[in-house]
Amino acid sequence: MNYRMIKNITGWLLLFEALFLLVPSVTALIYMEKAGLYYVGTAVVCALIGWLCMHKKPADTVLYAREGFVIVSMSWIVLSLFGAVPLWLCGDVPDYIDALFEVVSGYTTTGASILAEVETLTHASLMWRSFTHWVGGMGVLVFIMAFVPLSGGQNMHIMKAESPGPSVSKLVPRVKTTALILYSLYLGLTMLMLVLLLCGGMTVFEALNTAFATAGTGGFGFRNDSMASFSSYLQIVITVFMLLFSIDFGCYYCVLRGKLKDALNAEVRTFLIIVFGAVTVITLNVRTLFPSIGEAIRHVFFTVASLISTTGFSTVDFDLWPSLSQSVLVLLMFVGACAGSTGGGIKVSRLIILFKGMVKELDSLAHPHRVRKVTVNRRPIDHEVIRSVNAYMIAYLLVFTLSVILLSIDKHDLVTNFTAVTATINNIGPGLSMVGPTCNFGFFSIPCKLILIFDMLAGRLELFPMLVLLAPTTWKK
Amino acid sequence: MNYRMIKNITGWLLLFEALFLLVPSVTALIYMEKAGLYYVGTAVVCALIGWLCMHKKPADTVLYAREGFVIVSMSWIVLSLFGAVPLWLCGDVPDYIDALFEVVSGYTTTGASILAEVETLTHASLMWRSFTHWVGGMGVLVFIMAFVPLSGGQNMHIMKAESPGPSVSKLVPRVKTTALILYSLYLGLTMLMLVLLLCGGMTVFEALNTAFATAGTGGFGFRNDSMASFSSYLQIVITVFMLLFSIDFGCYYCVLRGKLKDALNAEVRTFLIIVFGAVTVITLNVRTLFPSIGEAIRHVFFTVASLISTTGFSTVDFDLWPSLSQSVLVLLMFVGACAGSTGGGIKVSRLIILFKGMVKELDSLAHPHRVRKVTVNRRPIDHEVIRSVNAYMIAYLLVFTLSVILLSIDKHDLVTNFTAVTATINNIGPGLSMVGPTCNFGFFSIPCKLILIFDMLAGRLELFPMLVLLAPTTWKK
Repeated sequence: MNYRMIKNITGWLLLFEALFLLVPSVTALIYMEKAGLYYVGTAVVCALIGWLCMHKKPADTVLYAREGFVIVSMSWIVLSLFGAVPLWLCGDVPDYIDALFEVVSGYTTTGASILAEVETLTHASLMWRSFTHWVGGMGVLVFIMAFVPLSGGQNMHIMKAESPGPSVSKLVPRVKTTALILYSLYLGLTMLMLVLLLCGGMTVFEALNTAFATAGTGGFGFRNDSMASFSSYLQIVITVFMLLFSIDFGCYYCVLRGKLKDALNAEVRTFLIIVFGAVTVITLNVRTLFPSIGEAIRHVFFTVASLISTTGFSTVDFDLWPSLSQSVLVLLMFVGACAGSTGGGIKVSRLIILFKGMVKELDSLAHPHRVRKVTVNRRPIDHEVIRSVNAYMIAYLLVFTLSVILLSIDKHDLVTNFTAVTATINNIGPGLSMVGPTCNFGFFSIPCKLILIFDMLAGRLELFPMLVLLAPTTWKK
Repeated sequence: MNYRMIKNITGWLLLFEALFLLVPSVTALIYMEKAGLYYVGTAVVCALIGWLCMHKKPADTVLYAREGFVIVSMSWIVLSLFGAVPLWLCGDVPDYIDALFEVVSGYTTTGASILAEVETLTHASLMWRSFTHWVGGMGVLVFIMAFVPLSGGQNMHIMKAESPGPSVSKLVPRVKTTALILYSLYLGLTMLMLVLLLCGGMTVFEALNTAFATAGTGGFGFRNDSMASFSSYLQIVITVFMLLFSIDFGCYYCVLRGKLKDALNAEVRTFLIIVFGAVTVITLNVRTLFPSIGEAIRHVFFTVASLISTTGFSTVDFDLWPSLSQSVLVLLMFVGACAGSTGGGIKVSRLIILFKGMVKELDSLAHPHRVRKVTVNRRPIDHEVIRSVNAYMIAYLLVFTLSVILLSIDKHDLVTNFTAVTATINNIGPGLSMVGPTCNFGFFSIPCKLILIFDMLAGRLELFPMLVLLAPTTWKK
């Protein structure tokens, strides 16, 4: 294990965290809030420690695969540990574990909160919560790797570990250029949304918060009723952008280059079919709960977009909907967004590969002499990819099951435990029952909060980095 | 598709069903019940139709893999369709779909009942319910294949389709001899249990019913409170035999041949660890609900054995236990018994293969240059087996999810729907909430009952035969 290199990268990371913390600091300055002192103070401390760690470049810059995983998981943990400090010190969240839960929920773009009341928070803390969504949405290390010359081209291990989705592909031969294109698209879409929100009458503060939380598919709000009290125009804008941010950013690059056919690939098509299918089924199921069919469609569309994109905003309390709608919504939470987007969940492309792999196996059982290959977008899928996706699914089931069992020590009902894990491992936010859209995660005991923190990190990093971190073989020489 | 051969085998099957129906017929004769007329009548009809179908052996006896699957799934459906008739005609179950549910639940060794009241049933029907468990436990077609000379050695496709567990292996080179050994063990263990039950004071009728239902890991009882009102001696005997019938029968053959080490293989060891682990956790969790620790252990052991063996008997209402115990119990329902036993569920050996496969993938991600193989019992596992187990798991999740969603059309709560599917697809019987151990499945609508019937069959046949039956490619030329 190249500890010096890990230290060096952690240093760079803390320097960037110091930069990130300037956003809430400036917010505090504008609103003349004392909380700003803690944000500036933490930024200074981060910068100092960061500089101490990174100023001497190690002689040996070689990184192997396992170090890539360890760096990724450690980085997200360190980011969160430091990021929680000002939220705790300024008094907005009086307990450090709660503050950590909140910031992990932010960076992992989950949006699950331990706060019953967000309207009394300082503007600085509200901005920090949303901004962590925006930073976490695209991945911190890919960002750093793209702009900082660290090691001789071995950054790939880190990038792979941070964005392991099965469809991760370089848009152009150079990693740096790919990252630049993706971040430009991310920034561009966020700006566009910001403008549309401002047109709808949001204040600059509200619009920035909403745009950050939507772009990262996070879901932290700044009103206690999430998005329920905003106009239908604003709700529709948010709905559209939640869906836009759940689609592989590579598609937008294809669109910009005029390759419309490539943009509408199998994953995007399946994603859209699932969205419209779910909206149809749920609208038919809940139409009598709303005064008009139009209103029903608007709220259902918002909820479906919010859950499949794993954002977690809400305009209605879907915990009160009938069980068919609830079952479909829980299913959407597992499906998640497209790979290569900022959304979480299992991801549509993984489900496509798993389904096609199963059909192929079934076919070869019934017709043992037929030779078949699994293809997606008319390209054959490597055995390695299929194996890795299968392993992901098993790891997912394992972490999920263990979490539900461990959570049940708190004696809450099964639906609460089941959907609390669903909402955190898939980086969504709200679940059902005691963690429904009008509730929060504050009532869990500290051990349970730590389990949910692990689930959020494991979910955001797509399991493997956190599991490699915990595996004993990683630490053997 | 060799339709003539399918017709021929179905004919043989109905002849055997006629034989099976003699058991309730004789019971009716002993208790002088009018219901016997319907059982004898159905037996005669089965024999007639069976003879018409089988008396002319087709010229072409060649069977391919897909025909094996189709024959297996069709056979179980035909057996159930005819088996439900006397239960319905004699008036014990006034509705045919309910009777079908009950008989499918019998043959698939599920034990889920639509009846709130079983003590008013005729002895003939009670015996028929338990006897279908015993017949279904070991598989009907393997039995027929072993004793009837059908085709020139191509029975393997049918045997493979009916017992696809990953550890299916021939104990001795000849299929027929293997089947003979397995059925002798099955009969021997059942007889031993019968004697022990009689020693505990059960009547012959009660002992036969209990032995049949335990041997098949079915779970149909003949008292409304299942096994709660029997003595602790009898409860302990049942506990032990539920566990014995969940262990690979091949192990007993090893024990008889003095190969104790081979008997205690990885699957059996894991199974026992899970059982004792679950008993410990649950006992600690529920000990205050019982007057003494001894009584707590007895009831917990019974419940754990009943659910992991997928039998489904009960001595207490575990729906009232705290959520930690309930979560562990639901987990056991999924784990299920060992492959090669009469129990259902995902099976311990599959879970071992899935877990080891995942660890291997994780290891090769962290150490890309290391070469590793998945081994169980120190023997390497074929890629094909791993692929097939993975495909099984995905098919399982797919059927499970679709069933829960379709079931939620009935507007019952999520826990009811989730555990109703859990209890049927894993061939257990009781679930939680509205399908808890003191409840029954009678309240579901007819479409939902049909879904659960499908789940029971799919679970018993380990998914693939039912999926091949439904696949459009199976029916193409």
